[in-house]
Amino acid sequence: MRFMLTREGCEALDANDPLRSLRDHFELPSDVIYLDGNSLGPPPRIVRGRISEVMDGWATDLISGWWSQDWIGLPARVGRRLEPLLGAEAGSVVCSDSTSVNLFKVVEAGCRLAEGDILTDSGNFPTDLYVLRSVAERHGRRLLVVDPERLSDGITESIGVMAATHVDFRTGRRHDLAAITERAHKFGGLAIWDLSHSAGVMEIGLAENRVDLAVGCGYKFLNGGPGAPAYLYVAPRLQAQLANPITGWFGHAFPFEFSSDFVPAEGIGRMQVGTPAVLSMAALEAALSVWEGVELGSVRAKSEALTSLFIGLIDQELGEEFEIATPRSAEHRGSQVSLRRMGAESLARDLARIGVICDFRPPDLTRFGLAPLFIRFADVWDAVSRIKKAI
Amino acid sequence: MRFMLTREGCEALDANDPLRSLRDHFELPSDVIYLDGNSLGPPPRIVRGRISEVMDGWATDLISGWWSQDWIGLPARVGRRLEPLLGAEAGSVVCSDSTSVNLFKVVEAGCRLAEGDILTDSGNFPTDLYVLRSVAERHGRRLLVVDPERLSDGITESIGVMAATHVDFRTGRRHDLAAITERAHKFGGLAIWDLSHSAGVMEIGLAENRVDLAVGCGYKFLNGGPGAPAYLYVAPRLQAQLANPITGWFGHAFPFEFSSDFVPAEGIGRMQVGTPAVLSMAALEAALSVWEGVELGSVRAKSEALTSLFIGLIDQELGEEFEIATPRSAEHRGSQVSLRRMGAESLARDLARIGVICDFRPPDLTRFGLAPLFIRFADVWDAVSRIKKAI
Repeated sequence: MRFMLTREGCEALDANDPLRSLRDHFELPSDVIYLDGNSLGPPPRIVRGRISEVMDGWATDLISGWWSQDWIGLPARVGRRLEPLLGAEAGSVVCSDSTSVNLFKVVEAGCRLAEGDILTDSGNFPTDLYVLRSVAERHGRRLLVVDPERLSDGITESIGVMAATHVDFRTGRRHDLAAITERAHKFGGLAIWDLSHSAGVMEIGLAENRVDLAVGCGYKFLNGGPGAPAYLYVAPRLQAQLANPITGWFGHAFPFEFSSDFVPAEGIGRMQVGTPAVLSMAALEAALSVWEGVELGSVRAKSEALTSLFIGLIDQELGEEFEIATPRSAEHRGSQVSLRRMGAESLARDLARIGVICDFRPPDLTRFGLAPLFIRFADVWDAVSRIKKAI
Repeated sequence: MRFMLTREGCEALDANDPLRSLRDHFELPSDVIYLDGNSLGPPPRIVRGRISEVMDGWATDLISGWWSQDWIGLPARVGRRLEPLLGAEAGSVVCSDSTSVNLFKVVEAGCRLAEGDILTDSGNFPTDLYVLRSVAERHGRRLLVVDPERLSDGITESIGVMAATHVDFRTGRRHDLAAITERAHKFGGLAIWDLSHSAGVMEIGLAENRVDLAVGCGYKFLNGGPGAPAYLYVAPRLQAQLANPITGWFGHAFPFEFSSDFVPAEGIGRMQVGTPAVLSMAALEAALSVWEGVELGSVRAKSEALTSLFIGLIDQELGEEFEIATPRSAEHRGSQVSLRRMGAESLARDLARIGVICDFRPPDLTRFGLAPLFIRFADVWDAVSRIKKAI
């Protein structure tokens, strides 16, 4: 480090932070520094009121609430709120099911559009690996699992579907979505991205980067609540050809005609399946309103500054104690920093006792999520001071 | 009719109804008779408090709420509350996903256990028909769709999987679950039942009748809220062999080990997929507490009495105007009565204006759901009076 980082310096960064008022949108306990928004975002204050509204609508309007309260429009409406966050075209995102179910749908459907092997990397989230493996088996395809740094090279003529998670849940390492997508296309394959650990902390540019299919979860940096419904993206150019493998009535063009024959909805709506879980989806809808008017460029700039500060402070204060498992180059990481040191679980528990909430992945990774919407630079200082105390 | 039905007679029935206090558990508008609990049950009063509790738990406990609030236990806990309602063995039911997704899972998995054609009937709910057709196509099987009254005869040596809905959503006609399941077994097939329109209004006897697999929805007679999560049953004898086609991390034996290899959970837990939608599932959990101490025998007796009264009153007051589309024999129906007459949509709208909420299936069916937990005999009288006024 060329100069000492100080708490005063952190406070000055907070004073100049264009996003600093966003923290007021969240319910956060006063006595903890919450560095696990990458696992479960905290509740935006607006959610309680929205949930009461749904409860009132249910009690007064009963069945007609589907129309009078426009519950029926929730999956598309949440999709539209997500589009700017994902850099996605209008009408390309829908809210539905869980991330795992959505990944199953897009990978299954993708396999019908593209022959060849399925490629992923070993840093992918477990549920993604499980779903990819079983889909591969069902289709009699090979699943190639390479090291994360070999993902791009792994794309060859044999690959039909490349499916990876943008930001690694363990290390925070970020793939080059643009370059990998381009390479997949160059060799005639499809690029499928899981955005669970990147949406809400950076520009994704799905349209600009010509991503084919994507999924992601609503409860991490999007703060939609525990187990919030997930979302799914299909590039407009693929929508007409893409067949949802789970043909439920909410994917039908005219579900309320109760026809015996399945006619897929035009556009992204066909990727829905069953009746949406209104309470949970309305919570996510409300949570996404926090993003109105928020510039993703500023979010990313703050995310990089927070993670850089955290790494800088660990180097300065605890350099001997930890290996930094997250890339030091900001462009190669998401919005978390992972530290490597045996005893991750007990460290995380000790930290919780002194007011720092992080999490761990056994045996040696402690993860610190730095959510730009509610984490302050001074929080990072205080968290590192407490880590120092804990070890 | 041998004697005239009167409003006084209905009031006497209410006075003697052992279930009459259950109505107090529900929020119901005072000025309407709600005969659409078969589409969306009204909110049990307990739900609001439970949802507040989840919101508080999210705000205070954040990520640790999964354990401190036992959100992680919700799918199994809701399953356990459903078991007595379904006459199911301990550990045979789990709450997960939507009915459509669950049907996909059990039919896909069932096809791997049983060779042969798939059989259903044309009265099945559309989403079931769509899912069965696409699963049949994927497996290169024939889907045989017979008239509902031919379902039993349709079971022959060629059938691997019989999948039907217990109570018909249009007519309220009930299949003989015991006999059809037995016949499916006799010919070496599996019996899969969709209980969406029967659970909560009668004894189902999944264990006693040796049903193989079942699914059902949480938002009709179970009152779990709009789009409440669905459930899924797997007979204990089949659990070890049944492979969930959507291998998500919540179906893993040890999801929090984040292993790269999928090891299915022992028992019914393996049929879960992604992270459960906690707000919606907690609402269903609370809604199911209304059933504590409720005898299903009394529920069914009241359901039969309500539907018989409704049919009797239509005969008495409006016999020329309607054809009764629901079986007149109580043992062959669920807890709804459907009337046939052109202009169903406009009749339903006219009725809504004078405080009777029912629904319609174009062109000629008007459906009246008679939920034994909150509908009074006097409500049936008043509803028929208003129907008389409306036409």
